[in-house]
Amino acid sequence: MVKKIKHKKVNTKSRSLTPVMKKAPLPSGKVIYMDYAASTPVRTEVIEAMLPYMREKFGNPSSPHRYGEEAREAIEQSKEIIAKTINASPEEIVFTSGSTESSVLAIKGVAYAKAGIGKHILSSVVEHDSVFSTCKSLVADGYILSNLLVDIDGLISIADLRSKITPKTTLISIQHSNGEVGTIQPIEDVGRIAKEKNVTLHTDATFSYGWVPLDVKKMNVDLMTFDAHHSYGPKGIGALFIKNGTLIKPLFNSRGNQFRPGTLDIASIVGFAKSAELAHKEMKSNQKNLERMQKTFIDYVEEHIKFVKLNGHISRRLPQNINFSFSGITGQELIRQLQSNQVIASTSIDGRVLEAIGAKGEKFTGSVRFSFGKDTSPADIKTVLYLVQNLVEKERKGY
Amino acid sequence: MVKKIKHKKVNTKSRSLTPVMKKAPLPSGKVIYMDYAASTPVRTEVIEAMLPYMREKFGNPSSPHRYGEEAREAIEQSKEIIAKTINASPEEIVFTSGSTESSVLAIKGVAYAKAGIGKHILSSVVEHDSVFSTCKSLVADGYILSNLLVDIDGLISIADLRSKITPKTTLISIQHSNGEVGTIQPIEDVGRIAKEKNVTLHTDATFSYGWVPLDVKKMNVDLMTFDAHHSYGPKGIGALFIKNGTLIKPLFNSRGNQFRPGTLDIASIVGFAKSAELAHKEMKSNQKNLERMQKTFIDYVEEHIKFVKLNGHISRRLPQNINFSFSGITGQELIRQLQSNQVIASTSIDGRVLEAIGAKGEKFTGSVRFSFGKDTSPADIKTVLYLVQNLVEKERKGY
Repeated sequence: MVKKIKHKKVNTKSRSLTPVMKKAPLPSGKVIYMDYAASTPVRTEVIEAMLPYMREKFGNPSSPHRYGEEAREAIEQSKEIIAKTINASPEEIVFTSGSTESSVLAIKGVAYAKAGIGKHILSSVVEHDSVFSTCKSLVADGYILSNLLVDIDGLISIADLRSKITPKTTLISIQHSNGEVGTIQPIEDVGRIAKEKNVTLHTDATFSYGWVPLDVKKMNVDLMTFDAHHSYGPKGIGALFIKNGTLIKPLFNSRGNQFRPGTLDIASIVGFAKSAELAHKEMKSNQKNLERMQKTFIDYVEEHIKFVKLNGHISRRLPQNINFSFSGITGQELIRQLQSNQVIASTSIDGRVLEAIGAKGEKFTGSVRFSFGKDTSPADIKTVLYLVQNLVEKERKGY
Repeated sequence: MVKKIKHKKVNTKSRSLTPVMKKAPLPSGKVIYMDYAASTPVRTEVIEAMLPYMREKFGNPSSPHRYGEEAREAIEQSKEIIAKTINASPEEIVFTSGSTESSVLAIKGVAYAKAGIGKHILSSVVEHDSVFSTCKSLVADGYILSNLLVDIDGLISIADLRSKITPKTTLISIQHSNGEVGTIQPIEDVGRIAKEKNVTLHTDATFSYGWVPLDVKKMNVDLMTFDAHHSYGPKGIGALFIKNGTLIKPLFNSRGNQFRPGTLDIASIVGFAKSAELAHKEMKSNQKNLERMQKTFIDYVEEHIKFVKLNGHISRRLPQNINFSFSGITGQELIRQLQSNQVIASTSIDGRVLEAIGAKGEKFTGSVRFSFGKDTSPADIKTVLYLVQNLVEKERKGY
């Protein structure tokens, strides 16, 4: 097990410009974490909001007494707060165990509910596995699946989308942004077409929620997947926005009044609402900071390291995401070496997205994703940049 | 919202023997909670175990670095602890969002996986809605469902069960205990027959887990549903025991290596393991205390209040459960009056279980469930008994 580690407060001055050459890792206990896209810690305000619902306000929302009432009230208030962050109504929010369940519920729920109308589904090759595999699983049930290709930047083509819609198309599921390479899809354009063609639109906004503005009305989406743990809320809690009037079947059955039965995790729901509230209050300033650091990072790498490829779109991109392929070193090797220098970054295990944008091949063997958090500092960026440069150059020199 | 309330430490001496007559509720802030079967608070040791996994150890178990590794280790350790409490192997534990998901996964998973063998399912009329409605939903998919009836004590008949098994029967789903009336089914006998007839056996042990011993090998069950929040763990986390070799389809699809994809809620999993460990360490002494208090309660009511009916079996019964019908007062009215006297108890909204045991009719209009917790004291019992007696008598006198 890893010892207790601190984030932030990494003293960059204690590092030479070539820390790798000296094989001098930071004193143990100091880590620069740059994998916030995988998960974030639960922020203190959120934990504080959750604790009373673990201790004294522990009622089951289905109980016919004041403890149940208290739980129901907490859920209603949380729905209100969360709905507001995406310009929806509270009754359009359904709590789930996370983004995976949300997307499965959205896709199977709509596909099954509209099976009488048609069995054609449109999605893309760069979706998260929870969407990609769920769509694929429907093929065995007699559905026809068209997965849109993407260009070198990871973008789908709106003309392509339009041309693939048939009278049998009942559902379009296109992600808001890609978790690996950060590309933000033109969901408003997709929404316009979906509305025009009367096709239900689901978008997986897991990696966007809490980082960039999302307006379900402006985007014209019928369903949207998002969760808490990607923006400083607890794990194990997510939501599905379901626009009023959307045809959808539940995943879990109940005697009728509940769309998603199962005792609701009130503490996590209250925590979700708190993290949502804070993320949206701080979004503008966070976004500005992140974009500035992102630009610094990208500019530096492109200027100072040869034979690199930025994966994902340069401007239609999540502000907290960087994804580079470095020729001469695999993603796995680079993140291993970064880790032994107290820097945590990530690489794609799957490779499907990289393949889709043409970033997988002889020249580029894998990629590294650096994803910032709200507390990532310009000093962190500087440290990581020097380190990456040195590690890549060392590896290329073969010593 | 309810003000901050304390459990325990209710001073019974401050109550007269007829508190109702005097209309003197306890000073606000003192409550006797007797609805632990609906949910329990998260105990302090569990919260303490969870917090590090919300704060610094926040990794995503699917991440290819030390934060991910730390999360994976925590999950493996938790599985080991939990598996031990039911005499299973760690790899036979699958984490879910709670008992509802566990039961849906078990029932649909086995029914679909074994559809080629047969489409007959055996369950009972007293199952929790998550089992009852899920089995019922399969009828629309062409399955045949036989729901066993129960006797006046809530017990199924083993002879009936045996006679209903056909060569097309693929799944038996019978609860370990009933959450409303506390009756414990003869699952070992069911297990013997299921094994003999080569039928998969699922049992919903939600209300038993952490309160009475459960041994999956002794019971011969193939699948068992249980969760954390019914025994002082967090909400939103449950488990499904799946015996090695059981034919079952997942609910959520993934690229193949994960039976239940979705980022695992490590903090809650660690909390689940902690609550499981403590519940099992303290089970023997808790069980003895609970049984003693249960006997006091039942004996008192049957001796001092006329026209009552104990619902559920007198001895094959959860030690924390009491369920009585009182003629002349509805369950809803009695729990309302109890609540205004600072005592929290529950009543069945559904009524299906009461109907099944013949406890619903002109004479008895509803029932009240009192469910104890590990900290319920004989003094609490005394207070509640006096109160119940007075409320019932007052209501019957009509003033």
